[in-house]
Amino acid sequence: MNPNIPQTDRKRVVIVGAGFGGLKLARKLANRSDFQVVLLNRQNYHEFQPLYYQVATAGLEANSILFPLRAVFGNCKNVHIRVTNVTGVRPADKTVDTELGPITYDWLVIATGADTNFFNQQNIIEKALPMKSVAEAIALRNRMLQNFEDALSVESEDEREGFMDVVVVGGGPTGVELCGTLAEMRRTVLPRDYPELDFMKMDIYLIESGGELLGPMSKQSQEHSLAYLQELGVNVRLNTRVKDFDGRIVTMNDGSTLRTNNLIWAAGVKASPLAGLPPEVLGRGGRIIVDRYNQVQGFTDVFAIGDVALMSEEKWPNGHPQVAQPAIQQGRLLAKNMTRWLKNQAPEEFTYRDLGTMATIGRGLAVVDLPFLKFQGVLAWLTWLFVHLMAIVGVKNRLAIFINWMFNYLTYNNSLRLIIRQKMPKGDFSAMQEKLSDQLEVSKT
Amino acid sequence: MNPNIPQTDRKRVVIVGAGFGGLKLARKLANRSDFQVVLLNRQNYHEFQPLYYQVATAGLEANSILFPLRAVFGNCKNVHIRVTNVTGVRPADKTVDTELGPITYDWLVIATGADTNFFNQQNIIEKALPMKSVAEAIALRNRMLQNFEDALSVESEDEREGFMDVVVVGGGPTGVELCGTLAEMRRTVLPRDYPELDFMKMDIYLIESGGELLGPMSKQSQEHSLAYLQELGVNVRLNTRVKDFDGRIVTMNDGSTLRTNNLIWAAGVKASPLAGLPPEVLGRGGRIIVDRYNQVQGFTDVFAIGDVALMSEEKWPNGHPQVAQPAIQQGRLLAKNMTRWLKNQAPEEFTYRDLGTMATIGRGLAVVDLPFLKFQGVLAWLTWLFVHLMAIVGVKNRLAIFINWMFNYLTYNNSLRLIIRQKMPKGDFSAMQEKLSDQLEVSKT
Repeated sequence: MNPNIPQTDRKRVVIVGAGFGGLKLARKLANRSDFQVVLLNRQNYHEFQPLYYQVATAGLEANSILFPLRAVFGNCKNVHIRVTNVTGVRPADKTVDTELGPITYDWLVIATGADTNFFNQQNIIEKALPMKSVAEAIALRNRMLQNFEDALSVESEDEREGFMDVVVVGGGPTGVELCGTLAEMRRTVLPRDYPELDFMKMDIYLIESGGELLGPMSKQSQEHSLAYLQELGVNVRLNTRVKDFDGRIVTMNDGSTLRTNNLIWAAGVKASPLAGLPPEVLGRGGRIIVDRYNQVQGFTDVFAIGDVALMSEEKWPNGHPQVAQPAIQQGRLLAKNMTRWLKNQAPEEFTYRDLGTMATIGRGLAVVDLPFLKFQGVLAWLTWLFVHLMAIVGVKNRLAIFINWMFNYLTYNNSLRLIIRQKMPKGDFSAMQEKLSDQLEVSKT
Repeated sequence: MNPNIPQTDRKRVVIVGAGFGGLKLARKLANRSDFQVVLLNRQNYHEFQPLYYQVATAGLEANSILFPLRAVFGNCKNVHIRVTNVTGVRPADKTVDTELGPITYDWLVIATGADTNFFNQQNIIEKALPMKSVAEAIALRNRMLQNFEDALSVESEDEREGFMDVVVVGGGPTGVELCGTLAEMRRTVLPRDYPELDFMKMDIYLIESGGELLGPMSKQSQEHSLAYLQELGVNVRLNTRVKDFDGRIVTMNDGSTLRTNNLIWAAGVKASPLAGLPPEVLGRGGRIIVDRYNQVQGFTDVFAIGDVALMSEEKWPNGHPQVAQPAIQQGRLLAKNMTRWLKNQAPEEFTYRDLGTMATIGRGLAVVDLPFLKFQGVLAWLTWLFVHLMAIVGVKNRLAIFINWMFNYLTYNNSLRLIIRQKMPKGDFSAMQEKLSDQLEVSKT
């Protein structure tokens, strides 16, 4: 195999990862006569991460929050998309290694984002459910729905509760939004779907190691979201850490236990840097240390943007929050600076413009922190809906999500309660075997 | 495990399969005080089979042609849905065996439909791509899209064509509609997505063993559909059978060969009867022989409806066509007759009311045979769209499909070109292992 990237005399920019940062950068460099863009991504689509939890809870179809990369760059002759895994970088050779073969670069941009951080707890890696990709969100949806099917056919009350109860770890936006949605489903659609089950017995726990929910938000928003969740009947435990999980019992650091088969892990992320970088460029949380131009320490031709990059500003001494906005803004500025370098002009320093943060808890329940204004309730909820709708790539996705939301709002009906089990594609046998042996290994350790 | 179906003094009707026939029957018996309905299905959703090919070609999302069974029967206290495999029937004990345990019945209705018929050709079973479930349609979509990705990174022209060329076997509606859609994509969206590939080199073949396409339709429709496909550049070979396929070369009965990695098998179906029935009730194509009341030969308490049933009428001596309408009509009448039997009234004989058949080939290209009228072209195409839209279960699905169709029509853009690879759910390890060993076995034989 051969990536077959044509040789040109343009500056070749290789971008690893088509998340918010990588996609923005590639779009800015598309159709430019001075650049050749090679965009490498594991999937053939861009994922809109902030709405994973709605896929997991059957409110949105996976398709609506995904956008095919080739549709974004249709007819752009200077953009070469390759769907592949990047296995490492060899800076001395100006080359990245991929599963399709090596690709050389003039400039390399690492935009590989972050993945679930299980903090090396082996039992939890094996048994908990993560939610850092659309594939994981679908797996979670299938698992949750299958749980209720299974609950119908068990013999003991203990087993039934094991299937129905849910423990979510991590009081960030993902954990909060997931618990809020599950609590609403418990009240509306689930009793209608399963008249044979008693949903008074379904318990939802949210475990947070810190002293408050939604850590980086305002005190006002933190308190409101806690109150909203409690109103919806979610058991929130602050200042508590999950220490162990054997697939049936969750054990906390205070020795208390909860009986559930379902531990959802939304407790943190760690950066996914590339193999082959010198260890001294890796900082806190595995992030790659960059200067204000997103240049990796010690390199002039390697850059990192977004979640995987660690840039210190006066206001952000420990790096920017690992959310969409810093990635988008860095991608945009890097495109501009690349043009400047090409013209031998001085680059512009990056300064993060915090546009605010928000989280939704339930119908009409949300919290919004803008730089100069904080508000909650229905108006916050409508703001959340509008901002997320506008942030989605593609008119059709936007329309599809709008219709889904309208229907869900009017009918209290998360209509996508489908347990779709994919067939293994034929010929994908080796990949399957590999996965199988991975799982075997994990279960042996 | 235990299916946990409560005992009542109502008549218990156990329905195996929630396709068109089983679903119609269950809906008719829902909320009736004299029946207890147990609906057994392998999936938690009803599938709208006529649109599989649009899922396979990225025109519709799988979700729009699926409907969750529990949403259909929300709050119906007399309907008990169990998502499980039925492994067989023991008529002497009035019991069906399921993976959840045995379930007794007063009346059993077998509505298990039909599956792909590979005519026992082992090489084809192993290597060809079927399309008789939504899971298979998704697998086909993933495979087709992955093919173009792979075509970008091969070294030889021969391998590239192996990935790009497609051979479809079977000139029924599925084969015709699939070829038509692929031919349109070759002309519109694919060159835009893959400017690096030469789509002049993508060949699409349709192989049909009979002397015409769309066998049961009028001569006029058959000729029009052939002409439409040829206009779109599909190579149609009539009176030809596929004899062998090794994953790279398709061999025909006349000794000719075609080079492709992609053999799509839409050449026929065989019924999926239940294990445990006496062999004498099985007729042509594995279908269960029933009388005009859908009663299985020799039983008063076992029924079969839809594709799996073989009922002779004067006009249909070899049974009804295996499509939606006979199943729906039989399901509806059986519900009525069950009520009549309960009241000791004489049942009504089934007579198939042929509402007509239609097939779509491309934009503005379709053929429609109504009982007293045959027409083609744009009007036929609009009729096809309208009828299929109206046949879909659920307002939201209908709206989603309408929007998708509008967008595809206006933008020439099958927007769902996503290769979504699901994660294996944790804990589903045994099922995976089973699948793996199935595949191993197949590859050993």
